[in-house]
Amino acid sequence: MRNIKLILEYDGTDFHGWQFQPGLRTIQDEIERSLKKIFNQEINVVGSGRTDSGVHAMGQVANFSIDSAMTPEKIRAALNGTFPKDVRVMAVEEVPENFNSRYAAIRRHYRYTIIQNESALKRFYAWCFKTKLNVEKMQRASDFLKGKHDFQAFCQAGADVKHHWCTVEEIRWQQQNDVLTLDIAANRFLHNMVRIIVGTMVDVGREFTPVSQVLEILNSKDRTLAGPTVPAKGLCLIKVYY
Amino acid sequence: MRNIKLILEYDGTDFHGWQFQPGLRTIQDEIERSLKKIFNQEINVVGSGRTDSGVHAMGQVANFSIDSAMTPEKIRAALNGTFPKDVRVMAVEEVPENFNSRYAAIRRHYRYTIIQNESALKRFYAWCFKTKLNVEKMQRASDFLKGKHDFQAFCQAGADVKHHWCTVEEIRWQQQNDVLTLDIAANRFLHNMVRIIVGTMVDVGREFTPVSQVLEILNSKDRTLAGPTVPAKGLCLIKVYY
Repeated sequence: MRNIKLILEYDGTDFHGWQFQPGLRTIQDEIERSLKKIFNQEINVVGSGRTDSGVHAMGQVANFSIDSAMTPEKIRAALNGTFPKDVRVMAVEEVPENFNSRYAAIRRHYRYTIIQNESALKRFYAWCFKTKLNVEKMQRASDFLKGKHDFQAFCQAGADVKHHWCTVEEIRWQQQNDVLTLDIAANRFLHNMVRIIVGTMVDVGREFTPVSQVLEILNSKDRTLAGPTVPAKGLCLIKVYY
Repeated sequence: MRNIKLILEYDGTDFHGWQFQPGLRTIQDEIERSLKKIFNQEINVVGSGRTDSGVHAMGQVANFSIDSAMTPEKIRAALNGTFPKDVRVMAVEEVPENFNSRYAAIRRHYRYTIIQNESALKRFYAWCFKTKLNVEKMQRASDFLKGKHDFQAFCQAGADVKHHWCTVEEIRWQQQNDVLTLDIAANRFLHNMVRIIVGTMVDVGREFTPVSQVLEILNSKDRTLAGPTVPAKGLCLIKVYY
């Protein structure tokens, strides 16, 4: 059996997220259905992680095993030929048999985009939020989250995980004209973690939550003390590192 | 009567261009219908120029006359409240009575975006064209078009214009990873002019047309000698100067 790794870009707008759910349109399901058409067999695809309904990806990674001599370039062309237009394979390569795109990932990089204005062209790819934000305070509050912490306060309540420890390696706000972005990289992310972090930092930026309170929220492990979960459409999985 | 100037962003994907056409969805028609709802009267909107079916805008300019005391900020909010999501007013200001967004414009800046890969996220906002292109040759050929010339060879045949003289002030290709953009600014543009220029330069870039032949095409004034008209979705009106 050969192990094939895919780098995928997708527009999450019309998907119910990555993971297969009966009767709903998901990215995993589209890939598995295309693989079935191409190879005429049921093939299970492993993704680096689930992206939620409406979340985009520029660099999602997935892999599958196949008993076929088809070259990576031909697999790429065949997949792009059968996929709908909102999912594209950007690269295909053969990897060692023991590579697992979920367990081998050491770092995930997400970007959240806020547009502080109206937008027609980016309406599906950013959250339009016009209230003035103090970005310097948002960065200072975000700095509390750097390093290894229990992120339960920033995890959707009821998420089925063994523990809430994550190591945030980068958390950086950048403003360019009307566009404000958060780049965040960590070894793992909990359910809705980026969107709850952004919601909390926006509360800091609009001076509703004091900077120092973010440390208290982190230590509380209490989801109800953190800010709201901001819309999915502003979030994009940029790259997965191995 | 007050004269009101609008700066508009729109996603051209689902529009049959700027100009009113009976029975078709156009940007001008959406604006005039919103103005009728707000001011309860027929109001004619003048745009800086027509954009074709499928072409986007970040900085289209339009103006209209109105006998109302409503502040620019309120007009903006009212328009954005009635517009569909693919048209947004980015700014509103009151201008002198004699300002005409079409005749007063001295310079238009368009950008054409080519992605040299597949793309899910930019599929409506760029032309995906994977053939390798020699950008240095495309720039040299484009340089022939700088300045004042008769651009009939780069104008859709049968266009109803008095003359084909245009002054191209800037024409610059830039490559960043897979994304290749042309920024072009001129006092005026003919019908399909940017898209025919891009099609011609892509023929140069893929080494089908020699660089020097572009000068011959320009001098010929013959549309049939220039390259194909590339897809509308890669084109965006960036800014209009007054």
